[in-house]
This record gives sequence, C-alpha cells and structure tokens, in this order.
Amino acid sequence: MTVTTDVVGTLGGVLPADRLVTDPDVLASYAHDEAEWAPWELPAAVVRARTAEEVQAVVLACIEHRVPVIARGAGTGLSGGANATAGAVVVALEAMDAVLEVDELERFAVVQPGVVNDDLRARVAEHGLWYPPDPASSPWSTIGGNVATNAGGVCCVKYGVTRDYVMGLQVVTGTGELVRIGRRTAKGVAGYDLTGLLVGSEGTLGIVTEVTVKLRPLRDPERTVAGYFDSVVAAGEAVTAVAAAGLTPSALELVDRHCLAAVDAWKNMGLSADAEVVLLGRVDTPGAAGDAEAQALLAAFEAGGASWAAVSTDAEEADALFSARRLAYPALERLGPLLTEDVCVPKAAVPAMLARIEAIGAAHDVLIANIAHAGDGNLHPLLSTPAGDDAARDRALAAFHEIIAAALEMGGTVTGEHGVGLLKRDGLAAEVSPAVLDIHRAVKAALDPHGILNPGKVF
Amino acid sequence: MTVTTDVVGTLGGVLPADRLVTDPDVLASYAHDEAEWAPWELPAAVVRARTAEEVQAVVLACIEHRVPVIARGAGTGLSGGANATAGAVVVALEAMDAVLEVDELERFAVVQPGVVNDDLRARVAEHGLWYPPDPASSPWSTIGGNVATNAGGVCCVKYGVTRDYVMGLQVVTGTGELVRIGRRTAKGVAGYDLTGLLVGSEGTLGIVTEVTVKLRPLRDPERTVAGYFDSVVAAGEAVTAVAAAGLTPSALELVDRHCLAAVDAWKNMGLSADAEVVLLGRVDTPGAAGDAEAQALLAAFEAGGASWAAVSTDAEEADALFSARRLAYPALERLGPLLTEDVCVPKAAVPAMLARIEAIGAAHDVLIANIAHAGDGNLHPLLSTPAGDDAARDRALAAFHEIIAAALEMGGTVTGEHGVGLLKRDGLAAEVSPAVLDIHRAVKAALDPHGILNPGKVF
Repeated sequence: MTVTTDVVGTLGGVLPADRLVTDPDVLASYAHDEAEWAPWELPAAVVRARTAEEVQAVVLACIEHRVPVIARGAGTGLSGGANATAGAVVVALEAMDAVLEVDELERFAVVQPGVVNDDLRARVAEHGLWYPPDPASSPWSTIGGNVATNAGGVCCVKYGVTRDYVMGLQVVTGTGELVRIGRRTAKGVAGYDLTGLLVGSEGTLGIVTEVTVKLRPLRDPERTVAGYFDSVVAAGEAVTAVAAAGLTPSALELVDRHCLAAVDAWKNMGLSADAEVVLLGRVDTPGAAGDAEAQALLAAFEAGGASWAAVSTDAEEADALFSARRLAYPALERLGPLLTEDVCVPKAAVPAMLARIEAIGAAHDVLIANIAHAGDGNLHPLLSTPAGDDAARDRALAAFHEIIAAALEMGGTVTGEHGVGLLKRDGLAAEVSPAVLDIHRAVKAALDPHGILNPGKVF
Repeated sequence: MTVTTDVVGTLGGVLPADRLVTDPDVLASYAHDEAEWAPWELPAAVVRARTAEEVQAVVLACIEHRVPVIARGAGTGLSGGANATAGAVVVALEAMDAVLEVDELERFAVVQPGVVNDDLRARVAEHGLWYPPDPASSPWSTIGGNVATNAGGVCCVKYGVTRDYVMGLQVVTGTGELVRIGRRTAKGVAGYDLTGLLVGSEGTLGIVTEVTVKLRPLRDPERTVAGYFDSVVAAGEAVTAVAAAGLTPSALELVDRHCLAAVDAWKNMGLSADAEVVLLGRVDTPGAAGDAEAQALLAAFEAGGASWAAVSTDAEEADALFSARRLAYPALERLGPLLTEDVCVPKAAVPAMLARIEAIGAAHDVLIANIAHAGDGNLHPLLSTPAGDDAARDRALAAFHEIIAAALEMGGTVTGEHGVGLLKRDGLAAEVSPAVLDIHRAVKAALDPHGILNPGKVF
C-alpha cells in the first residue's frame, strides 16, 4: 500500500496513470469555463475519468482529504459554475462519451455525461427519435454539462428544457456512493424527485455519471418566418403579439444588428445590411395547420410593426439566419471580452425590458448586442468591451448588475438557462427570500455533508 | 394571553373559532383517504384553513408541541398519504378554493390548493386555456392533493403529469416559514428545483398554500378509436404495437369486462356485452395529420389482434366509453372493498405484466379487474373482495405484493401516479437502494427538522 499525504497522492494510488493530470499548463485549460471575469485558480489535479467507478474514487479521495471536487464537461458554461479553486480536483467527464442504449419503443437513451449534445441528437435520429434541448453550445457542450445547468436552447419555447427530458441519473453522491435515481418508465412517483433536484444543481449536490433522457419522435421539417424590425423594442412588441395570439412557435429568436455584423465580419454572410433587428420564428406543425400557424406568426410580426416579414421559401437562407444566431456569441467574442446576460422576463415585459437594456447600455457607455430566446422572454444581452480596457470592464459590470435588477423588478429571474455559478450568486440572493436560501443550504448540507462538491457555487 | 397546555389549546388561541374541529364524528370524516386497508386513527383536531397564514399558524403550533401535521385536500388519495395518526392535527385545505389569477399571455394560473381539478379546467377554458393533468378523480380531487401526489391521468401519455405543469408554489415549510419557490416566467434556473422536489412529496416536506400552474392553449376536439380484444394480454400487445408504430395518442386507456360490467350494473350503460377488454385511444392532432394518426392507431389495434376496432363517428358513444373508464373505480367500490394497484412498467412489458396479473389473481383466487393508462404502461389492477371476508382480504394483500414484485422484476415502478403513502412504503424500499433511501431521509430531515410534516408516510 502506498502511503499518501495529499489528495494527488491518493488519486495516483487508485487511478490508472493516464487519468491524472498535474502539468500546470494542462491544468490551466481545465480551470475555468467561458464566463467572462469569473474568478478561477489552478486546481491541484485534473482527473480525466473514464468510468463511474473512477469518478467515485475521486470523490472518495476528496472526502478523505476534504478537498473540493469540481465536475466539468466541455467547459462551455457561461456563469463560472465549473471554475476551479486552488487545491481542488477537477473531474473532467468529456471522455465518458458513450451512448449506452437507445430504446426506440420506450423512447429514451442512456448516455454517459461526456456525450456532446449534437452527437446525441445525430445518434438518436438514426432511430427516428429526437432529443430537443439545443443550447447554442450544442456542437460542443456535453449532456452532463447540460444536466448540471438545466440547459435550454432554441426549441424550448415549444419543447421545454433539459429537466423536462431527464428521466433518471446515475450519480456519485457527496458521501461517495454510486446510486441510481429516477426511472425508465413513462411515469413514476416512487419517492422524492431527486432526479429533478440534481438537474440544474451545477455539480453541488452530486456528480452525474450516466443520464437517461426522454426522446420524442423526429418531427416534420420546420417552416421559417423572418421579420425585420427598426428597433429591439419593436421586435419585442412582436414577441408579445405572438404570445397574445396564442401561438406556440417551435422557435422564436431575436438577433440584433450588432450580432449580425459580427457574424458578417467573421463569416462574410452578408446578413447585417437590411435590418436593425431580426426575429426568426419557426413552425413545425405538419400540414395545413402548420401553414396556418406560419401565416398567423407572420401576421403577429406585421402587427408588431415589422418593416418586412415573410414566410421563407428558401431553406438555405433560413438556415443561414439561424446559423447567425448560433454564431453570434463566438463572433462577438472575437472582438473582445464579452459578458453574457441571461435574464428571463414575462413575455408581456419583453419590449419594456429590451428598452431598459438599451437605456442601461447608453447610460454606462457599453456596447450591448442582443440575442434572445425571445419567445420565452429569455434575453441574452451581450456586453462587449475592448480588450484590456479596465474602465470599460467596470462600466460593463455595472450595466450587468443593473440589468439583473431590472429583470427582477419586472417579475423575471436572474438566470433563464445558464445557471447561477459565480456570476449570479448575488442575483440569486436578490431573487429568493433569505428563508429560501436557507432551504438551499439545508439541501446542500443534506446531500453534501462534507461540503466538497463544487463549494462556493450557486450560493 | 391564554395559557395552553396542548396543541388544540394553542390552535384555539390563534385561529378563528369556526376553523377548529374537535367533534369526533367530524374528525372521523377527515381521518383517512380512499386507500383500502391503510391504517388511520382519529386526529386531535382538524383545522379548516382559509388562508396561508392560518396554515402557517397551524404548523407553528405543531412545531411548538411537536405534534404531526397532515395536509389534506379532498381525501381521494389511494395510498393512505393523508391518513391521520392519533393526536395529530389535520389541516384541511378544501376551503382555500380560489382561482387567484389567470394570465392569458404568459399562460399560467395562480390557484389556492383547494381548487377542484375539473373546476380549474373549466375556469381556464373561459380564457381559451387548458390545464391537462386529469386524474380519474378530477371531479372531486383538488390541485393541492394533485401536487402532493404528482397526479397523472388520461392525457399524460401525450401531455405529462402534474409536475410538468407546476411552475411555482407558496409553501409553509417545516420550520413554519411561509415562502415562495419557483417562478412566473417560461424558463428559470435560479437555484435548486425546490418546486419539483415539493411536487409528489405527499406533504412530508412542506404544506402547499398556493400553486402556479402552467397552461396550454385549448386543443382541438379529439377523435376516438375503440378496439375490442379477447383478452387483456391481446390488448396489451396492441398497446406495445402503438408504441412500436411511433404513435403518441392523446389517450390510450384499457378497461376490462369486470369494470364495464360494474359500470353497467350501476349506470345501466350496456357496455359489457361485446368485449372482454376495450382499448380506447384518442387523437387530438388537428386536420389531415390527425386523420392519418387515427388510422395508424386503428391499424395498430388491428395488428395487435383486435376482434373489432373503429374510429368512432359517434361522439356520444365515445364519451360513454371514457365515462365508463372514469366510473370504473367507484362502480367496483360499490361491490366491496377494493384494493387499487398503480404499477408502471415499460411499454414493451405491458402484455407480459397483464398476463402476470391474471396469473396472480388466479393463483390467489382474487377477482382482479383492470383499468390502465395503458399507453404509459401504468396499470391499475383493482383487487375486489367481498365485504367482511378476512380470508379474501389476506389473499388480496398477498396478490397486491406479488404484483408489486412482478412490476419491479420487469423494470417498472411500484407507483406510477398514486404515490407511496402508506401502502407502498415497502415497495419504495424494494425499488430504490438503501443509499437512495438515506438520501430521502437526509432531504426530509433538512426540510422538516422537527419531523412534524406527515411523519411515517413515504418511508
């Protein structure tokens, strides 16, 4: 038996040699997610786990040494939820990327946490099935990370978020046990909904080593309805008009000129010339009912004041517009540090909230680009700053906090889909009452009695 | 200040006089739900609460005196979850029956827990909206009870269960605080999903005093497809065929001859002459796509071996068949004590499970009638016994436990929608691992540190 004095020594004794990383250069690449200006430090080690038992061994070693353990998928998070602290162990799950089972009849898949979102979608499509949640990070982000943050995406306006698709989990608990929770049947109410509790808990209540996701049948091709607007507020009014008309589009996205221009500058797609703001709606209802729905969406865009709107007859053009929406974040990131907001407000408040964001940007002299899952009221103002400009950074942070306060004032939430992580801890404390924060602490203490699971995140 | 020595005295001091009931005859009517043979005793008092603050006062009094408090809706539960113990306080929520808000644009309603399920559906229909979860108890059961048990129903096969529709809650906690959890926006990931955790927790983690439920637009009229089968197993094969065809009907219910005969004996509807088992499918997809789906459902019934099947052109006849399904439970209850099962198995296992249920009934000489949310694999074998026949009761209980064991063996769950309550505590312990039961205990201790919230239920 090896005598060990620290967690790295213990890990070295229980894991295959190629799993353990302590090279500082490599550690740095695992030390943080994509959240701008969220603090991070070098961990003591990274473990590139390949099995649930290895994850369990890591947690047991961390319990033994009372060392924090931080689970990590692809690192595409935007709230600092996966950021490391000095001396911690990061367990990287990206190599656990197997699709273990696809049950066509029961419509579920069992996957390891490192499966990339788009890869899962492609894989189950071979069985005529569809995994809906589609965060903009879908080409890179993993299902484990999606589960940790309860990720959303474009299709959520009609099909819901990650939690709506997670039926069961295998989890390493805060006491180092490897357990299964949830079910493989269509329904089930045996005991507390621990599965739902784990989804969105950002690695603070357990580390997910396997996920059973519900699937839907592949859907019909979507129709796209595009509308150009002269201002974000006008586009917001169209979003409210869509809701008021009782429509449920399969997507309703907003992309402003700053985003289109950034994508043009990168990919030369020629998108930004025509409009200040573009609304992109989609309809996947089949047949004549779908045609009628597309026309109703078009009418709502026009009622909302579109300067131009049409049902697209050109699939390539429609796909280009949706690509631009997906590429907006990386395109803007090329231009300098980018702080991403994620507030969600009632649909009726979308125009007023967009106006407030504009006013806040003007007041603080911050360039704010806007993308939004507008149909959900989930807005992503992107606060863009020049690299190395500390004053601009301070102004952006001030604007960031004002946007959060405005969203709460309008009956919204500080985070629609990115999670609390580090960036929204104050926001969470402002959103819920002290008694509700106490309940969070009690739940955390119950499931992580040693306080080793991603401590310091969420609250 | 009144000096009090017991919880009834304390309650008398803090509540309006008409809220507090201590008359033993009245107490008895609040002392248990509809679960057959689940133990109950007379509580010390019943409080007919009218406000959240009154519920809070009850919980505070129960904390002070370390007395159990048991929340109760309409008492239609089938697992003993609302059963009283000697000396406990029952808080009856049926008088808190206001619909406080309907937001057409955001599509939610805010209701008190005592609102009857069907009344909520009727009320929101005035706004063009629909509350899907529809347990068979919908004419009587309350939303608070539906939330406590995470109730299902007929439409769940396409539209999901109560948890899928609960956005937010007002709750009196185990420490006597009145808090709001959840959200009023389409999305939100600020903090743990405490709302989902409370749903289905059967009054053991908090007492719900207000519910915000998500709504959908009213849907198109449904088409009904009926099929007659010569055995429950043949009908089960048709259920599997529906799933294998990739269909998602808006209902897929099974009713056997015992149920139809009992309804006939009560309501004289003339339903039981033609078939051993009836499958009732519904399709709510609009237009030609819906026509095609109804035909595909019909084809699956025929492929499954239906002796007769048709798309109904007679709405009255179709409604009569669905009424029979809803009335099966009370109709059979008229004939003697009725023990209700609630297992849920994978859809592929439905025929085998139905065969096992038949075999178990034969082996124990117990009349087992079958209704089922067959499309979910959620089976409700109804074990019918002659009144006062202790031997028959013992045989029924033996069959009940064998059915639970068989469901687990087939990868199912011990309770699809009725909850654990008292009747499935052993079943839960058989379904989940000891480590998962420990997590339940830890969560319970975290949210109910004084152990006063419906103790002894679930685990």
